[in-house]
Amino acid sequence: MPLKLPHLSPRMENVSPFRVMTVMRRAAELEAEGHKVVHMEVGEPDFATALPIVEAAKRALEKGLTKYTSAPGIAELREAIANRYKLNHGVSIDPNRVLITPGASGGLSLLANMLVSPGDGVLLTDPAYPCVRNFIYMLSAEPQLIPVSIVNNFQPTLEELDLYRNRNSRGLWLASPSNPTGTILERQRLQEICDWTQCNRLHLLVDEIYHGLEYVDDLPSVLELDSSAFVVNSFSKYYGMTGWRLGWIIVPDEYVETANILAQNLFISPPSIAQYAALAAFTNEAEVIFEERRDAFRQRRDYLSRALRELGFQLSNNIQGAFYIYANISKFSEDSEEFCKNLLDYHQVAITPGTDFGEHKAKEFVRMAFTTSMQDLELGVERITKALC
Amino acid sequence: MPLKLPHLSPRMENVSPFRVMTVMRRAAELEAEGHKVVHMEVGEPDFATALPIVEAAKRALEKGLTKYTSAPGIAELREAIANRYKLNHGVSIDPNRVLITPGASGGLSLLANMLVSPGDGVLLTDPAYPCVRNFIYMLSAEPQLIPVSIVNNFQPTLEELDLYRNRNSRGLWLASPSNPTGTILERQRLQEICDWTQCNRLHLLVDEIYHGLEYVDDLPSVLELDSSAFVVNSFSKYYGMTGWRLGWIIVPDEYVETANILAQNLFISPPSIAQYAALAAFTNEAEVIFEERRDAFRQRRDYLSRALRELGFQLSNNIQGAFYIYANISKFSEDSEEFCKNLLDYHQVAITPGTDFGEHKAKEFVRMAFTTSMQDLELGVERITKALC
Repeated sequence: MPLKLPHLSPRMENVSPFRVMTVMRRAAELEAEGHKVVHMEVGEPDFATALPIVEAAKRALEKGLTKYTSAPGIAELREAIANRYKLNHGVSIDPNRVLITPGASGGLSLLANMLVSPGDGVLLTDPAYPCVRNFIYMLSAEPQLIPVSIVNNFQPTLEELDLYRNRNSRGLWLASPSNPTGTILERQRLQEICDWTQCNRLHLLVDEIYHGLEYVDDLPSVLELDSSAFVVNSFSKYYGMTGWRLGWIIVPDEYVETANILAQNLFISPPSIAQYAALAAFTNEAEVIFEERRDAFRQRRDYLSRALRELGFQLSNNIQGAFYIYANISKFSEDSEEFCKNLLDYHQVAITPGTDFGEHKAKEFVRMAFTTSMQDLELGVERITKALC
Repeated sequence: MPLKLPHLSPRMENVSPFRVMTVMRRAAELEAEGHKVVHMEVGEPDFATALPIVEAAKRALEKGLTKYTSAPGIAELREAIANRYKLNHGVSIDPNRVLITPGASGGLSLLANMLVSPGDGVLLTDPAYPCVRNFIYMLSAEPQLIPVSIVNNFQPTLEELDLYRNRNSRGLWLASPSNPTGTILERQRLQEICDWTQCNRLHLLVDEIYHGLEYVDDLPSVLELDSSAFVVNSFSKYYGMTGWRLGWIIVPDEYVETANILAQNLFISPPSIAQYAALAAFTNEAEVIFEERRDAFRQRRDYLSRALRELGFQLSNNIQGAFYIYANISKFSEDSEEFCKNLLDYHQVAITPGTDFGEHKAKEFVRMAFTTSMQDLELGVERITKALC
């Protein structure tokens, strides 16, 4: 980091690059040299955006719907999202509480600005999605990392929350399903956590970006259990709209006005064509496609988790959602970065070291994404098998 | 502002909503009641996005170019932008210094995070685009407002800079052409300001969002004069791509790495379809359209500025760029908010009070945007004439 630059804010010292980017660059080099690389590093579905959405985008272009929309997004889309919560979760959400954002990144940025001040502490799990930690550093606040472990499904227990909470703590940010671990907060535990945050007067923010991509019967939204919670969600994963940059947040009634002001300032408006296109995500036609894809992800998960266990990787009993397996490699290596580098350089399999997601046992873990075809996953497993010989 | 909310960051107290939003809401109500409203409040070109860009977007959709791109954007677009600086400004810019952002809003947000820390002061003009001030508040820093006046073309003099600079000042943020005043920094003054910031070891950030929409022969980019400056630009105004949410920043070599890390964290990627579409903005076919539109804006400027002067509004001798006239109304009213409200309620002409842009003489000024047809501008002038009788 070029810390001696005259104008660089000292906060930038803590904002870390994603190690997965180095993996991706090296993979691209190997491909340029003619190698076939198996990509298990990327947090992006391999499927193209579903046709009904693409067609809706074309229609929006033809209608010239290319102007700014209102800052929190078009009313139809906010209503469609609110309806979806009624349908999937049985909760009534006023569409005014739904703000469309430029990706979940935009949503996280807005909520961070609204809820966090310099010197505040925010409780996070370690491991977690690295952006979250960095957003908190950007606000000159302190990520208060709770080491979570495989035995507790990589989610915090109430005892751990009590232990890591201090007088600076202002909020608790969790993810269910979680990136990188693929685990969820089951209803009972999530309810206990809601009660704990209310009792401790902390705000509760839940990243539900991987909702829809769950392989369990019951995945509650935090809004079923706690109407004072803040939610971040996205059209990128289940809805397969990564490059469109569209997400949403849901805030309690009392925060709607401030959230709107922040949306005006931070974004002016979410991308217009993407919003009109996303309306098609709520059609039956699109739903059928999404559910087929979820089935494909589930089959890949079944295959990859079984294969990795057989090879001696240690993983959660149950990858309940998202498209990641967070696997312990201590049987093979003491250094996940070196492990990943070797696997890529000598066997052309790209995976992400645990060090991208925190510090706790990060050298013992790697993240493998099943965002590639079954055929490629089989090739990947074959190569990993060879690498471990 | 709901300041007593348990979890709201106290910084939010200073982040103000845009008054233009209230104007727009009231205008929409009047239209719903059947009134014809003349819109001179909106900072968005009335023209649809040029057809070559729309067609390029459709082709990108057909090719399935809907995935994340790299965080700083696609190489072709960064190169096209760098080439444009060579062509228009005679400066060689390494495309690596160009980062594509989700709107200029995203670019400003990135630069603010990179350059500003809590407690820092940033010198700004008053009036200025309100977001800028708010971004600085969001970082718990202090906007150091320099009142600028019509006699100095609404841009700061070196004496004023010396006067308002203090030991906390870290940078100077300017706009040329300026929103809301439509004035530019001419070459000589811009050079002096570059020298002054270097001499005072402040960073210099110039909003060049309205470049292309200038009505003068010489509009320098700050990069012609100072390679250590930071630039924000946009596809929204000259290129007419508002709802696509696409802008760019240019940073000095030494800041490229940090800017990339911030782009990864803040955005993951700019919107993909918009980036492929924007490539068509650099074709001759599109250029012809943009230049026709610039001519239309120039004619509207000529008409509106003459008409307003005849009515007794006081304005700059020369509206040199953008599509705004910042007019002094003290001959008619002591309160720009009341003036705007009455004009809208009783005469159905929507304009923006100066209070959206700062505090300095803000009650004496209004912003009128010539982002509507000549026919509507004529109707607007007719109604304003009647209102002033």
